[in-house]
Amino acid sequence: MQKRADNNGNKVYFLFYVCVVGWFAKPSHTKTETHEDFSKNLKEFLDEMQTNQIREHLRKFTRLPHLAGTEQNLKYAEQIKKEWLEFGLDSVSLVPYDVLLSYPNKSQPNYISICDDLGNEVFNTSLAEPIPQGYEDVSNIVPPYSAFSAKGQPQGDLVYVNYGRTEDFFQLEREMGINVTGKIVIVRYGKIFRGNKVKNAMLAGAKGIIMFSDPADYWAADVEPYPDGWNLPGGGAQRGNVLNLNGAGDPLTPGYPAKEYTYRFSLDEGVGLPKIPVHPIGFHDAIHLLKNMGGRIPPNNWKGALNVSYRIGPGFTDDFKSQKVRMNIHTNNQVTRIYNVIGKIRGALEPDRYVILGGHRDAWVFGGIDPMSGAAVLHETARSAGSLLKKGWRPRRTIIFASWDAEEFGLLGSTEWAEDNARLLQERAVAYINADSAIEGGFVSSLSPFFLFRVFVQIASPEEGEEGLSLYESWHKRDNWTEDRDAPRISKLGSGSDFEAYFIRLGIAAGRARYTKNRKTERYSSYPVYHSVYETFEIVERFYDPSFRRLRAVAQVRGGLIFMLADSKLLPLDVNEYADSLGKYAQSIAEVAQKHPEQMELYKVSFDSLFSAVQNFSAAARDFYARLQTLHTEDPLQLRVVNDQLMYLERAFIDPLGLPGRPFYRHVIFAPSSHNKYAGESFPGIYDALFDIENSADPEKAWQEVKRQISIAAFMVHAAAMTLTPPA
Amino acid sequence: MQKRADNNGNKVYFLFYVCVVGWFAKPSHTKTETHEDFSKNLKEFLDEMQTNQIREHLRKFTRLPHLAGTEQNLKYAEQIKKEWLEFGLDSVSLVPYDVLLSYPNKSQPNYISICDDLGNEVFNTSLAEPIPQGYEDVSNIVPPYSAFSAKGQPQGDLVYVNYGRTEDFFQLEREMGINVTGKIVIVRYGKIFRGNKVKNAMLAGAKGIIMFSDPADYWAADVEPYPDGWNLPGGGAQRGNVLNLNGAGDPLTPGYPAKEYTYRFSLDEGVGLPKIPVHPIGFHDAIHLLKNMGGRIPPNNWKGALNVSYRIGPGFTDDFKSQKVRMNIHTNNQVTRIYNVIGKIRGALEPDRYVILGGHRDAWVFGGIDPMSGAAVLHETARSAGSLLKKGWRPRRTIIFASWDAEEFGLLGSTEWAEDNARLLQERAVAYINADSAIEGGFVSSLSPFFLFRVFVQIASPEEGEEGLSLYESWHKRDNWTEDRDAPRISKLGSGSDFEAYFIRLGIAAGRARYTKNRKTERYSSYPVYHSVYETFEIVERFYDPSFRRLRAVAQVRGGLIFMLADSKLLPLDVNEYADSLGKYAQSIAEVAQKHPEQMELYKVSFDSLFSAVQNFSAAARDFYARLQTLHTEDPLQLRVVNDQLMYLERAFIDPLGLPGRPFYRHVIFAPSSHNKYAGESFPGIYDALFDIENSADPEKAWQEVKRQISIAAFMVHAAAMTLTPPA
Repeated sequence: MQKRADNNGNKVYFLFYVCVVGWFAKPSHTKTETHEDFSKNLKEFLDEMQTNQIREHLRKFTRLPHLAGTEQNLKYAEQIKKEWLEFGLDSVSLVPYDVLLSYPNKSQPNYISICDDLGNEVFNTSLAEPIPQGYEDVSNIVPPYSAFSAKGQPQGDLVYVNYGRTEDFFQLEREMGINVTGKIVIVRYGKIFRGNKVKNAMLAGAKGIIMFSDPADYWAADVEPYPDGWNLPGGGAQRGNVLNLNGAGDPLTPGYPAKEYTYRFSLDEGVGLPKIPVHPIGFHDAIHLLKNMGGRIPPNNWKGALNVSYRIGPGFTDDFKSQKVRMNIHTNNQVTRIYNVIGKIRGALEPDRYVILGGHRDAWVFGGIDPMSGAAVLHETARSAGSLLKKGWRPRRTIIFASWDAEEFGLLGSTEWAEDNARLLQERAVAYINADSAIEGGFVSSLSPFFLFRVFVQIASPEEGEEGLSLYESWHKRDNWTEDRDAPRISKLGSGSDFEAYFIRLGIAAGRARYTKNRKTERYSSYPVYHSVYETFEIVERFYDPSFRRLRAVAQVRGGLIFMLADSKLLPLDVNEYADSLGKYAQSIAEVAQKHPEQMELYKVSFDSLFSAVQNFSAAARDFYARLQTLHTEDPLQLRVVNDQLMYLERAFIDPLGLPGRPFYRHVIFAPSSHNKYAGESFPGIYDALFDIENSADPEKAWQEVKRQISIAAFMVHAAAMTLTPPA
Repeated sequence: MQKRADNNGNKVYFLFYVCVVGWFAKPSHTKTETHEDFSKNLKEFLDEMQTNQIREHLRKFTRLPHLAGTEQNLKYAEQIKKEWLEFGLDSVSLVPYDVLLSYPNKSQPNYISICDDLGNEVFNTSLAEPIPQGYEDVSNIVPPYSAFSAKGQPQGDLVYVNYGRTEDFFQLEREMGINVTGKIVIVRYGKIFRGNKVKNAMLAGAKGIIMFSDPADYWAADVEPYPDGWNLPGGGAQRGNVLNLNGAGDPLTPGYPAKEYTYRFSLDEGVGLPKIPVHPIGFHDAIHLLKNMGGRIPPNNWKGALNVSYRIGPGFTDDFKSQKVRMNIHTNNQVTRIYNVIGKIRGALEPDRYVILGGHRDAWVFGGIDPMSGAAVLHETARSAGSLLKKGWRPRRTIIFASWDAEEFGLLGSTEWAEDNARLLQERAVAYINADSAIEGGFVSSLSPFFLFRVFVQIASPEEGEEGLSLYESWHKRDNWTEDRDAPRISKLGSGSDFEAYFIRLGIAAGRARYTKNRKTERYSSYPVYHSVYETFEIVERFYDPSFRRLRAVAQVRGGLIFMLADSKLLPLDVNEYADSLGKYAQSIAEVAQKHPEQMELYKVSFDSLFSAVQNFSAAARDFYARLQTLHTEDPLQLRVVNDQLMYLERAFIDPLGLPGRPFYRHVIFAPSSHNKYAGESFPGIYDALFDIENSADPEKAWQEVKRQISIAAFMVHAAAMTLTPPA
């Protein structure tokens, strides 16, 4: 009853508010807001964020498993909606889509067996991870599985293919002469997105693929396994989807939102669904599959850290020759309703300009790190914004908070919403800041060269012993860009989280910032307990951020970016920085091509058009910047014209024709490589064309494609430069 | 020398102007411009347009042939540039592209022969049209040819296939049992775009195609042939390109502007190039090919107006059995430089909002009607705008005047410029008004439901005996929409002129208005001398518009639309009219499907989602209109927000994935049918899918495609409705 009353009270307040303000009423944001007001409001907004609040949010939303499509994840959505309304957001709604999800069959568990020649199962992998302490009574913990795996019970010999990368399969086939047709491949997790491993196995002809977490990749030195430390226990395994969507969103409704009336392809026609069974295991189980393997000794860089020889196979040594491996996979694909939560703060002067802070809510189990460390931060940002609103503040532009569903199943919630709202977004979205996992280690990491990083200067370093240092200084100190560039490192956006559709499909300036591992000193792939049941509240509280100050710092960075983007008169986007980056990217991709000087000459391949386009862009960016100095910011139309140029600059890099074979990856400057979804490549069209040089049976054709991609890139850079020149 | 001095003087003036105004200087357009100022300026702008000026422009630019890619057409471009600068436009430039054109081989003329069994040519078609009086000394008249025809000398039996439509070939194959594989087909011009005829012939397996102008289709009753009247002489023939570009522009650089550095596909890979020889002839020649044809008697609706029996073939009657037809085609494809002329008047308050008036300049020969009647009108509009500028006026938004090149070769100039400027246009273009042929008969015709037609009310009817009537009344009187709708008829935009890339690819609101034939009473396809050497200045002066008052009326309509779009505070675009049209279109496409009630039931095909989307759109349009009443038009940001909603409404109908198999036709509401480029269809995806129902070997699959297209259309209409709701 109490709940209902709150809710109603809140609704009344909301309606009343709309009533008073109206659609075309004079905005409460005064046009004469000074820079002092802005700074004061920003400071208040940042200071309001509290470690104990973030701790509470994280605690509250990690008590129960909340896999996408489950009742519990809907309950959390409703709770978030209720709380965002209480915080003071103007409107909050649940936006449903009906997308293809994938769950293990509860009555027929998935596992892998070693079978003797009579077909008896002499070894079976475990059906679940050991439950962490304190969660023994929790139900609905989904066992480790590969979402969207094909069903089936393939049986055969194992072949070990290292990380399952394109180059690993090449080495296997070309140097070792091993054909995996009809075999089951076993690969270790790490280095690339698991979906790419599955695709490579399919292309190579395998009839099944097993992925295991090797301690070499998921075990930090001198750290105990959970619960005594943050390493992955031997019984833990990495869940995850194994799709190759390339940005399509729901596999059955590519390009269009998965609404009730939407036409759905059949499962056969669906995008990116693997045609073979796939299953993940932990290293305790992996030892049993690997220890008796026969065949050749692997190269050293194929060896992990288990006490086995990592032989390639096919199959077991002579003593166990008659034993085969059988996968038993009964996972079901199922169209299921998911729910995004969308909260809005209406912009006072430019309601049709959107600044989006979005992160997912669905988790494989508890989601202690992924995604709830991000969701807790998002929640606190919304709370702080609401608090400022109640004091009379209202941002110049509209702010949209999004709690996405079904990210773990292929970024589905965020992509369907992007498809649903594509027209509004491409015309109106200023920027998208991602709010996935906020902490994966002890190191600040920030991505996207387009943003001004002033906000980092205003935030205090959360680290002990760094009192008085700003977050910017802390970041800079720990991760300098390169030897010849004295600035904190900014990386390229790849994919693997919800910014994908906004950035790579729609061309909305996007960024992410989080604490992550130190890429120089920490060798393991991602954080060890990633996508396991051991991602609990406690792992954050005990190991990653006991004071919750790092999470607060992330909240301040993400929130601060949103604030500046939504409330600055002039958008805080840096065209010169973009120009510099383009120059570096062009240089670097040309260097890759220079590895083939004879062929470059033979096929008349030149990067001159690209270099010339980049120079043109740099000149346009400098001129644009110079003109900004004479801008009358008090003239609303002049300001709007310039801000539109800034907003649409990222959009200019979108090619509606998409990258070759990937119609939903449309950003010509940044996209994941075709060979690893996690890796953001610059000039991805050229990158992929050069990658294919190695493998093509027709080098003439392959080099023609390189030339075509250079020409497209040069044009797109020229076209983007044009958007920066005076509009008439 | 005098010329040069003019030019310099002008340039100094121009530079001075830029200097005074600057980029961010206060606009000269006062923000308080009243409705009275607007009306006064509009009246002055319309009144300034003069019949004698239009006559002079037309005279000047039709003296010499000016085919795309020729020196003469560049000279006209330079002259237009010079004059536009003299008129007072802020800037004018020539914008070149290097596109694939196609010309006859001067040393090896194209013709068609009848050969006897020894291979002797017993009849040859004429190599040129008889030159009209007064033009005997003119050189560089290109003879009738089919641009982009394949080269070759195929020889074989003729088959007559009526208009060469999809349904004609079906009738031939299914009802008459005639297979044209290895045959040469002969078809009459008319009903559909000639490129579709060629594509159908290729699909049917023909090895060549001849197209002739039949008097049934190119001869008005009681009219003399040129020069005594405006009918097509028997020696005249229709030139034209025979591409199937589907909006791709330059065949070698689809999707990207044909610049020097642009990667070009090989001719084999080019878009839409026919693989068989094609040639056009007049009816004097056609008689010789048709008169001895054998085979079956055709259905009555296959018979033209020549004194022959129109037998189907294959081949000739028994007496002439041994005679074969040989095509001798030596036309060359050739990458050639073309030039658009782009003139600009910078907008005072919103320089980043573009209103475009564009029409082509290239002509097959003199272009008396096509395109110079339009180019003369465009020229006069620019002159009148310049005159107003000199008096101190400056429009709120930027106006762009464009003289396109190589329209006749596949809309190449306009499409390449659209590709080059796609990013600017999709963000900034308010509307595109087309300025091709202004007069093809005595009847006003206007297309596009989205525009407000207020301007027609302000223009006087040019017709004798209609003194005191407005152009609107004249139009309404002559072409009422339908029996149940008391309004002048507005038609759907198909393709076949330069608005294509702007409207169907980019989703910029577009319109065209011209004098055309009376569709109810005049049976002939297009105007008789279309694309012949007889399109002279004199045919306009003697027959089509001796007083030049009709051309002035067209100038006032096109110019008036541009003026209103560029200078109205609130954009003169009518969302309710769009909503009404969507409702009618949905009704009408559903009726087409209802012809198959059993299959609709069997495959569960429903239009409910589309009807519901249209209702939703109508409600959103009504609400939008209602909110307009409370708009504070003196608040520049509120006004901009609303105008952006109006501007982007047409954009909302663009699907970046394109229509099936036609990646550059992206407008889900309007596009040409796949079976006739000239016919604008509403909901073209559904239309084509339903068309295919008749022919598909797999009805289940065909109906699934209908369902998919309905779902896409419904989504797009919903998405467009969303853009009309309050932005936050």
